[in-house]
Parts: sequence; C-alpha cells; structure tokens
Amino acid sequence: MWTISAEEFRRRQARVREALGRRGLGGLCLFSPTQVFYVTGFAFIQTERPIGLAFPREGRSVLFVPQLEAEHSRLHALVDQVDDYPEYPGRTHPMSRFAEICRDLGLGTGRVGVDADGYAGGYGYRGPALSELLPDAAIVRSRDLIEEMIAIKSAEEIALIRESAKWGNLAHTLLQQYTRPGITETEVSGRASFDATQAMIRTLGPSYRPLSWQRAGAHAGYRGQIGRDSAIPHSLTTNAVFRAGDVLVTGAGAAVGGYGSELERTMVVGQPDDRQRRYFELMMGSLQTAFDAIRPGARCSDVDRAVTAYFETHDLMPHWRHHTGHALGMGIHEAPFFDVGDDTPIRPGMVFSVEPGIYIPGYAGFRHSDTVLVTETGMELITYYPRALEDLTIPV
Amino acid sequence: MWTISAEEFRRRQARVREALGRRGLGGLCLFSPTQVFYVTGFAFIQTERPIGLAFPREGRSVLFVPQLEAEHSRLHALVDQVDDYPEYPGRTHPMSRFAEICRDLGLGTGRVGVDADGYAGGYGYRGPALSELLPDAAIVRSRDLIEEMIAIKSAEEIALIRESAKWGNLAHTLLQQYTRPGITETEVSGRASFDATQAMIRTLGPSYRPLSWQRAGAHAGYRGQIGRDSAIPHSLTTNAVFRAGDVLVTGAGAAVGGYGSELERTMVVGQPDDRQRRYFELMMGSLQTAFDAIRPGARCSDVDRAVTAYFETHDLMPHWRHHTGHALGMGIHEAPFFDVGDDTPIRPGMVFSVEPGIYIPGYAGFRHSDTVLVTETGMELITYYPRALEDLTIPV
Repeated sequence: MWTISAEEFRRRQARVREALGRRGLGGLCLFSPTQVFYVTGFAFIQTERPIGLAFPREGRSVLFVPQLEAEHSRLHALVDQVDDYPEYPGRTHPMSRFAEICRDLGLGTGRVGVDADGYAGGYGYRGPALSELLPDAAIVRSRDLIEEMIAIKSAEEIALIRESAKWGNLAHTLLQQYTRPGITETEVSGRASFDATQAMIRTLGPSYRPLSWQRAGAHAGYRGQIGRDSAIPHSLTTNAVFRAGDVLVTGAGAAVGGYGSELERTMVVGQPDDRQRRYFELMMGSLQTAFDAIRPGARCSDVDRAVTAYFETHDLMPHWRHHTGHALGMGIHEAPFFDVGDDTPIRPGMVFSVEPGIYIPGYAGFRHSDTVLVTETGMELITYYPRALEDLTIPV
Repeated sequence: MWTISAEEFRRRQARVREALGRRGLGGLCLFSPTQVFYVTGFAFIQTERPIGLAFPREGRSVLFVPQLEAEHSRLHALVDQVDDYPEYPGRTHPMSRFAEICRDLGLGTGRVGVDADGYAGGYGYRGPALSELLPDAAIVRSRDLIEEMIAIKSAEEIALIRESAKWGNLAHTLLQQYTRPGITETEVSGRASFDATQAMIRTLGPSYRPLSWQRAGAHAGYRGQIGRDSAIPHSLTTNAVFRAGDVLVTGAGAAVGGYGSELERTMVVGQPDDRQRRYFELMMGSLQTAFDAIRPGARCSDVDRAVTAYFETHDLMPHWRHHTGHALGMGIHEAPFFDVGDDTPIRPGMVFSVEPGIYIPGYAGFRHSDTVLVTETGMELITYYPRALEDLTIPV
C-alpha cells in the first residue's frame, strides 16, 4: 500500500523498452541502486558485492545478485529472472559471469546502454569496466535514459512523497517542541525522530516499508547548524547546546516506499532581534521569488536567475553559498537543478526542493527548504510546515 | 581527542609522497570521500557537487570544494590550499576548473595517479572523466595506493576503533535488555541507539566528532533479521514484532572520529529448543575455526578456506551465503576480504570482521560478528560482547 505498485513497475519497463527503441539500443545494463530500484523495485545498498540488471529491449530481464541477496531479491524484484553468484571476490570475478549473462541475452554485440561502464562499488570493490568484458558491444553511456523518466513523477510517486512530507512535518513539529536552551541537538533530534517514527509505523501499519537503508521512519534534526554554525550549510556536529539568541537551521523528512521529501526551517531561540528579523525576511523574500518563478515552460535556470537577481538587488551576494534547489524523490538530490547552469525545461510532475539560503560567517545562516510539485499552471507546495518567524520562535 | 591527530595526517601525506615516488607518479588526484578523508581529515558526503584533492608529489596540495563547503573545509582539511567553485552545475562545469588546478600544479602532463577517472557523484551529477580533461597526462588507476595504507591501522586508528566498540557494546547491551515479546524492532533499536548515543556524547564530551554522515553516535538494531527473516542476511523491515521462539540477528556499532567497529549477535527469544541450539553451536564452531586461522603470514583466503572446510564437514554448504569477513575501519566494509578469492597476506595491524553465518530459509539465520585486530602472533578480539547462547537468551 505504501509502495509503488507492480503495475507501475510494468509501465516503467514498457517505457524503458520504448526509449531503447528510440535510441537504437539493444538493451540496457544498470548498476546504480537508484536506477535498478526504479526499474525493478529491488532496493539495495551498494557494497563490494556487485549487483547489475541486464535489460534487453526484447527478451527476458535478468537481475544479477550475490547469493546473500538471492532470497530477498526473488521476493521483491520485478524481473523475469534472478541469477546469483557465490560471493565477491570469490573464485571467479562476478562481473565475468554478468558479462556471460549479457551475451546470452544478445547484449554481447550491438549498441548497449549503461548507467555506468561497470559496477561502481566502493567498500573495497575492484572490477573491470563492462566495455572490457564485452569488447564486441558498443557501450553507450545512457544514464539520462532513466533519469529523464525519474524526473517526471507519477501519481503513485507523488502520493509517496506527500506521505513522506506528513511524517517529516510531525518530526519537525516535535523537534521544535522539544528544543529549548541548555540541551543538546542530538537529544532533541533523537527524541523527535524516535517519537515521529513510532507514530508513523503504528499509523501506517505492517505494510509500511521505508525501502531505504539510510533512514527508516521519520527524522528531524539540525546537522550542527546551530548558533554561529548555522552559517555553515553542512556543519557536522553532535553536541552543540542550544542557547538563547541562537539561529537554528533544521532538516526533516521520512522514507516511504523508497521516496522522501525535504523540509527545512530557520528558527530562533528566544525573541529575534532586529538583525535576525531582517535576514529572516530577506530569506523569505528569496523563497517567494523562487516560488513565483516556478512554472511549466520556464527553464530551471530561470528560477535560479530570479533568485540571483533578488540577491544582487539586496546586496546579498557575499552571503550566497548555493543554488536555489534540486529535484528529489527517490534520491535526496536528483537532476535537474534550479541552477543558472541547468537549462532543463520545467515540466508538470517534477518535484523540487526550493531552498535559497543566506549565510553570514561568524554570525548565522537563514534557509527554509520546501518540497514543491510543478503543476500544469504553476506549482503546489507539498510541505506545509509554518514559514513565518512568529511560528518559528522557540520560547525561552 | 577522539579524532586522528594532525601529526598522523602529516605522516600519511609523507607516506603518500614516498609511494608516488616508488610508483613513478607525479601526483595523485582523489575523489572518493574515504580516500580524501584519509589523506586530509576532511569528511564529506558525495553529492552532485564534485570534491577533489590534487596532491602532487612535490609542491602544494589543493582541495577543491563547492563554495558551500569552503568554510567547513578550511577549518578541517589538512592541505596547503582550499580552492572553491560557485556551484554545480553552474555556469562552468566545476571539473574544468579542477583540471586547471591540476595543470597549475604540474599534473597536466606525466603520470598521474587517480582513485577513479573523475568524480563519481550520484545525486544527479554528470561530468567528464579526468583523462578527457587532461589529455596530455597519463592517468593511472591507483586506488590501491591509499587502500594499501588504509589496510594497516595505526595506533591512533586502533584506539578509535576500540572506542567505537565500547559504545557499540553499550548500544547492544541496551538492545538486548529492551527486547521482549510483543514490541517492535524499531521501538527497541530506536530506544537503545538513542540512550547509548546520549551516554556516549555525555561521556566523551564536546571534543567527540563522529565524522560520519550516516551515523552519529552509537546504534544497535536488527535490520529485519527477526524470526524467519533472520535467514535473510539483508532483510529490511521496520515493524516486525518480537515473539517467543524467534531467532534474532543483531548489529551494533558507533562512529568515532570517522572510524567504526562491527558487533553482531544471534539471540533467541525464550528458551532455545534443540534445533536452535544445534545451529547456534555449529555457528560458534565456524567462528572459532575462523579465529584459529587468523595469523600474520597466512593469506586472507586461508581463513575462508578453513571456514568452508568446516561447513563442508558439517554438511552446512546448503546454508552458506557469504564469505567469512572483511576489513573495516573508516569504511563499513574495506578490502581485503576473508574470501577464497582474496590471497592478500594477513599482516599485523589489519582489522577485520569475522562473521561466518548459517542461513536456513523459512526457519532462521545464525551469525555473530566480531571485530578483530591482527597482532604480531595471531589476533586479538576488539569486540567483547558475550558470545554464549545462555548470555544471549531473552527472557519471556
């Protein structure tokens, strides 16, 4: 119930076959967890044990997994066949066996699309490029084939992202409620995430599956953006203590059936002073500028240019640190980007974070992030947590 | 205090320079978070914004980061210089600028080692190979240069791994204590992880830094290996409810200064029956077989062969799903592997997981995992959680 349906996976596979036809590719080999999950419904973490999908335009699809994942993948992967190998590194390199599978499926010659030329690994993996193993095939980098499909969300995907946003909202509500001077960020974020996750799991019931290794359930926290460190977008601490006068930048979300959402807020501990108010309102202006620029037919770069112009008008460029936002869904970040360098047309069904930020080193950072859905006529906010400073002030 | 010292990073950099000399490389370009962290102390998550280290054999080292990470990396990276770029994708692809930096450092020609031929990315990143950007250089795949250094742990690294094991032990103690029939895995693992993390942070004090994006603090949980699903090594559920008679397989650890440890135990809810006892004891026998085979001078494959022989002797091969273990430290898994296909010599200072497992689909799985240090004469257990069945029985 809280996952993508088998019917949708079949529709995706039909669309992959059409795209292969249009591009004159005999098949597709995928290795990235996101792309394999998108096509088959099988969620895995990328370790030293290679996993690959061989998906010919015509004929049966084969998911190739270590024996360790054999039962798990046979239960969950929508493919015609699962082949397993004993272990990595093992007596024979698993990728040699994967190349054999490709040849058996007719992918040993002709044009074969790939998301990457071989398994990327990490965790100590080493292995050959697929092009070395299939010297008679023309390996065509085609990561964009699935990426283009991923960029436009279906009704089922949007429903999961909305469900994620609900539980991110609960986690954030608890985070705000639990935050007070004198306690540490990990205590507050741990409690908020735990309580929201328990509520979520009990509410959604046994059919809830996060389909994410990184984050099961709901979470909310600060990632160290507390007080002066709120000016450091990816500060990583664990034990900052809240004090009156701190500016805080939060983050919250939840994993539902492999999909997520993004919610971030700037909060102030105690009554905000004038300088805090001023930067907060400037940030709110930049957020509204972005919202106003998002509509189908515009380009992603238009949104970032509008925000950049806003920053320039208000003398904020010294405090600019990053672009306006990014697509998201299965990935925490996905292409395209609200970035001056990304001219991708904005289309209905795209889901983005909108998160222009103002950072003053040694003082504070100011950033909200909302998840928005592009509609036929403009955009719709998926996240609905209060945005106004009066609603984001922690009593002291 | 709970991080690698600046002196050690300087020693590492001197050893990298020596290795570059031995291999006839003019310098090294690194893109993987693990390798960049190992050399510079700068911890980051791999997103769509490329990060690279240009490390010439002679001359200054340059860390290349997005502006977003500029302040953060200048605080923490032990390099001669940090260069930043505005944003990805941005008006100019950041990798073009990185290539310029390489040329300025004399890495535009000659032999240049890399951990990968360009930034790997994910999160929607696309970009050129470094070899395309530096056509006059000979790009030499040299991931093993740093991997060989990583494989032998220093005294400081071993101290961090030991510290991690302590807090993993606490988290596991609480996990066992909180587990009882009728409640869910996430409730127990959330509570145990939260309480252990709070104790850890309060004990280690403000100088504690996890230096890990994935996991701050200590954690313990089940990853779905509960009851029948204990037979699925990477089962991913969130809401299994404990019942009397369940076999459980756990996992616990903690992030300390970028390092971790691995502790896993098989537990039984209620008094174990004869079949559970029999498989548990067989698993214990396989664990001891592995411990007995670990000594400097042997090969990694020898350990796995000894365990495989044990499985064959006891007719357990139908229940075999994975090799005996893997190195670990900064990575959750690292090379080398206790695997029949890995003939790397075992050397003092290596740290491994030892975790042979027995899996009976539809019934249960049995696996302990311990973290061990190879000594001059044999091995030493770093994890010290009780291993006997009587100590791992949950009262009902």
